[in-house]
Amino acid sequence: MGEFDLIERFFKRPTRQAALGVGDDCALLQPAPGTQFAISSDMLVEGRHFLSTVDPFKLGHKALAVNLSDLAACGARPLAFTLALALPRADAAWAAPFAQGLFALADAHDCELIGGDTTQGPLNICITVFGEVPLVNGRSQALLRSGAQAGDDLYISGTVGDARMALEVFRGKLALPAAVFEAARSRMEQPTPRVALGMALRGIATAAIDISDGLLGDLGHVLKRSGVGATVDADIAASRVAARAQCSDREQGQWRDWALAGGDDYELLFCAPPSQRDAVAAAAHSSQTAVTRMGRIDAERGLRLVDAAGQSLPNTYVSFDHFA
Amino acid sequence: MGEFDLIERFFKRPTRQAALGVGDDCALLQPAPGTQFAISSDMLVEGRHFLSTVDPFKLGHKALAVNLSDLAACGARPLAFTLALALPRADAAWAAPFAQGLFALADAHDCELIGGDTTQGPLNICITVFGEVPLVNGRSQALLRSGAQAGDDLYISGTVGDARMALEVFRGKLALPAAVFEAARSRMEQPTPRVALGMALRGIATAAIDISDGLLGDLGHVLKRSGVGATVDADIAASRVAARAQCSDREQGQWRDWALAGGDDYELLFCAPPSQRDAVAAAAHSSQTAVTRMGRIDAERGLRLVDAAGQSLPNTYVSFDHFA
Repeated sequence: MGEFDLIERFFKRPTRQAALGVGDDCALLQPAPGTQFAISSDMLVEGRHFLSTVDPFKLGHKALAVNLSDLAACGARPLAFTLALALPRADAAWAAPFAQGLFALADAHDCELIGGDTTQGPLNICITVFGEVPLVNGRSQALLRSGAQAGDDLYISGTVGDARMALEVFRGKLALPAAVFEAARSRMEQPTPRVALGMALRGIATAAIDISDGLLGDLGHVLKRSGVGATVDADIAASRVAARAQCSDREQGQWRDWALAGGDDYELLFCAPPSQRDAVAAAAHSSQTAVTRMGRIDAERGLRLVDAAGQSLPNTYVSFDHFA
Repeated sequence: MGEFDLIERFFKRPTRQAALGVGDDCALLQPAPGTQFAISSDMLVEGRHFLSTVDPFKLGHKALAVNLSDLAACGARPLAFTLALALPRADAAWAAPFAQGLFALADAHDCELIGGDTTQGPLNICITVFGEVPLVNGRSQALLRSGAQAGDDLYISGTVGDARMALEVFRGKLALPAAVFEAARSRMEQPTPRVALGMALRGIATAAIDISDGLLGDLGHVLKRSGVGATVDADIAASRVAARAQCSDREQGQWRDWALAGGDDYELLFCAPPSQRDAVAAAAHSSQTAVTRMGRIDAERGLRLVDAAGQSLPNTYVSFDHFA
């Protein structure tokens, strides 16, 4: 099977929204009047972002999910994506389930493949995703990292630390009950992009980011770009992980580590003024996504961690760095 | 140096056209009224698309050039691009000249970097490029592969076969005078995307494609999508390569091979009706790009090769396939 057969067999489908899809030099895409494009690009490398043993179906899901998560963080509605793929060889046994996993998630979000590239090389998956953000009176409704205000509540969606917990099992450093491990593994291998929540938070959240490198590290990006600080209840996030692991006798510090700096969570971290608490609850309800208030934005710069009793905790967490 | 330092130091610059550039979850881009986006994505892998010894400045140029070449083939005006980069290590000595080469070409085309990704991994460069195509009375002015008509003239821009000639020198299979080799090497390492020509051909050319996998192979895509055939004068393309190589005593067949199936040319192949010959000449003149008529489109399917004397030649050429 050659390059063009591979594309033809597994990656070419009729376009629905795009003016022109796979098969020409460029795809053509036209935003609806009164909207702008949100664009994000993520590259996944074997051994770095996924294990070589991962099920290709799940990998297809994850490769698109991490990109959709960026759209979610902007409050954008997914429209389309390009896929560039380096493969060691043109292998139908790999490409078929990969494409199935990819398209299952794409279809669930009405997001279509409009182009890309296929080449021989060490396994590398690069997706660029396009979403739509409305303009209201000429103003973009995109959620940005830069809008957090002192006094805002700080929220996270879902739970954090699960993916890291699964990774620790794979590394042989943690044992979990089978059902707990399967749930954590599913969160690591097939994260759920919080697209509906992101869209529901337009006009409510002042700032948002998706958690990919660890909660505190990604919060740091929001604080830096917004010029503010924050106080975070470390145990709200940690307690959920510990409860899920059914291992409450473990050292509390470990759960904190994984919840606060575990990475690969693809949950949304966002800020909203206390006056919007009902609106946040309504957004969580309408998007069927759990949301937890876990801190507040301060005028004073810096990040302050406290435990459930309000006692200060040292912040020794660092964000994931691909070259560190 | 970490991931974020690398981005901050070498890849973050103020945006000019985009509503939001590097540094948030998504970039925001808004097309001008009456236009649509042309989008293309290309992935370059070490050892496959470039030699490991290549000058990073030239590689920065080439990575963007091959993407701009796709916009050129659509007649699109470059606007912006995303860059996803897997690097074995965060190496400033590599990243600095790479970024310089990239931005030198980007600036020449007023095309800005709006986002992307950086990760650790085997060297891999994935660029997704965005261009603008006007709509006239609601109709896209994009040049497509599918519009060729029987009776159309067939043209190529510039020269083909140079990159392949340089590659044969690197492979030790060809010796060339130093100046000829340097010229060919420059064509291989720093191809010129024919953006101005592509834009000038809007409304004139019936179909276009950029030549990346070899002239005849890429022509095959046009013929297939347009449902037509073609007759190509093999020696028009070949004679130019032979003349440049200053080796007219070489076997003619070899020059033909390199011109017709060499690959990595990044020239435009396009079709236009004979009634548009003056308009094609004017587009070539205004874009300062040489254009050569080298065949015609036939109603009869299939590709027919003839030599300078009009004699039939066997077509044994195959298009470059990354997995063949």
